[in-house]
Amino acid sequence: MADNHISGLLQDFPVTICLPVEWGQMDAFNHVNNIIYFRYFESARIAYFEKAGVLTYMQEHGVGPILKHTQCRFRIPLRYPDQVQVGARVTDLGDNEFEMSYRVVSSNADAVAAEGTGTIVCVDYHSAAKVKIPDALRKAIADLEATKQSG
Amino acid sequence: MADNHISGLLQDFPVTICLPVEWGQMDAFNHVNNIIYFRYFESARIAYFEKAGVLTYMQEHGVGPILKHTQCRFRIPLRYPDQVQVGARVTDLGDNEFEMSYRVVSSNADAVAAEGTGTIVCVDYHSAAKVKIPDALRKAIADLEATKQSG
Amino acid sequence: MADNHISGLLQDFPVTICLPVEWGQMDAFNHVNNIIYFRYFESARIAYFEKAGVLTYMQEHGVGPILKHTQCRFRIPLRYPDQVQVGARVTDLGDNEFEMSYRVVSSNADAVAAEGTGTIVCVDYHSAAKVKIPDALRKAIADLEATKQSG
Amino acid sequence: MADNHISGLLQDFPVTICLPVEWGQMDAFNHVNNIIYFRYFESARIAYFEKAGVLTYMQEHGVGPILKHTQCRFRIPLRYPDQVQVGARVTDLGDNEFEMSYRVVSSNADAVAAEGTGTIVCVDYHSAAKVKIPDALRKAIADLEATKQSG
Repeated sequence: MADNHISGLLQDFPVTICLPVEWGQMDAFNHVNNIIYFRYFESARIAYFEKAGVLTYMQEHGVGPILKHTQCRFRIPLRYPDQVQVGARVTDLGDNEFEMSYRVVSSNADAVAAEGTGTIVCVDYHSAAKVKIPDALRKAIADLEATKQSG
Repeated sequence: MADNHISGLLQDFPVTICLPVEWGQMDAFNHVNNIIYFRYFESARIAYFEKAGVLTYMQEHGVGPILKHTQCRFRIPLRYPDQVQVGARVTDLGDNEFEMSYRVVSSNADAVAAEGTGTIVCVDYHSAAKVKIPDALRKAIADLEATKQSG
Repeated sequence: MADNHISGLLQDFPVTICLPVEWGQMDAFNHVNNIIYFRYFESARIAYFEKAGVLTYMQEHGVGPILKHTQCRFRIPLRYPDQVQVGARVTDLGDNEFEMSYRVVSSNADAVAAEGTGTIVCVDYHSAAKVKIPDALRKAIADLEATKQSG
Repeated sequence: MADNHISGLLQDFPVTICLPVEWGQMDAFNHVNNIIYFRYFESARIAYFEKAGVLTYMQEHGVGPILKHTQCRFRIPLRYPDQVQVGARVTDLGDNEFEMSYRVVSSNADAVAAEGTGTIVCVDYHSAAKVKIPDALRKAIADLEATKQSG
């Protein structure tokens, strides 16, 4: 699989990033350490936020996303050298929180290495209180989801 | 709370560790980054394994634990300076896998900062195949759980 | 060596911190990965800054320290389980920058695991320009250095 | 600068890698944390070793490289989003150790963000003793250096 070709395993994901596996991310078991997968999720989440304009909205309005819960199901171990493609999508968009799904694909195996979710709430940074998801963000997310390859 | 006093919030946990929050673990939001919580869980898990003799068993028999799934619910943000106490316990011990629960307590807040779980399977390192949890490990875990403070 | 006893190898250091070696900090060579030593240095540096009031000064005056250069000489490898004591001291205090020295002591080996330095400049956060080290910080550093055990 | 175009600032480096800056690599100062630069150096070092056949040699002969010293001079801060190109070259090849130089180039700034060095010794993994750099590795390094763009 060439670097710039998005895996068919990620066709439902409107945002994907590509990251090299780094040697130093492996632990004493010779596998990429489990916490790195949450870094993958985070980097895909931030790429999604950037594409949806969430980070700009946050700076202008002082309202931004906070991670409330996240989980990962590890399927096959990753080793250096390899590269991963990581997809992010919003699978549930409620009044007060939304859920993202993530999928990590190993280029070497051409298979899903891990899958996970993240639940995100919106917080007013001045009051530190949870707020409803602003309509502008809700629309930006809906628009971005509509662009996904299988859409 | 003194460094060596175990929080009452961890009385159900047979193994606890204490870790300082490090400044460099905070991200651009001025909170301890989410992946660090999974490092907390891992360090508590390894301390548990060490206390139960899992690591020794692993070296002698070539059978050891692999993380299949993990999750974290973030409750209050952590900031430097602080220290955390992290508890680990086994909450479900099946034939083929077991579940651990983790709790992270902030010393500054004297409150739960995060809670999570990990599902662990046993793997034969030579064949890379899943195996039943060996009886010796099962007994070691049961014995360790029986020592917990509230037990 | 008990946890709270400061190693004689650190008697020239006015600030020391104690950190457990975490299993997940080891890489595929079964040693603590080299970048973790710079986290040790950073955590000792921040502890020093905190003790000297640098962080408070920074918040009040918008002038703070930036790392310009750092180096590490690795002497013996570290492995889990162990704990390290890390000392920080200021060894040169110029008009525009100062140099810190760091020493990492392995509790298991009761020996120096690594030594290093950091060169720090002061920056005005508003203009991003380098400034002379403020007199208040210079005095705080000199006072702290005077407290070291061998002083 | 396109992703696949190697910066002219790296023309003396026979091995270069390209890495995205990840949001979670920034610390509370909103800059990429200093320890990440040493991960950059390590990833470029490993890519160099891979290209020179060092890792294969190591597995076959039980002789491999150990980092003895490393340093970094930070020139301009890095922030997300950006990507870095990291070059590695061998600048001194002695009987018992060799020195590598690293350069980190920010794509946003099209400028050098950091430079550093690493001193590497060869160790027999069975005896843990230092050994002379094997002739096969010495030749592989010399051959690789001869391929550099400006060579």
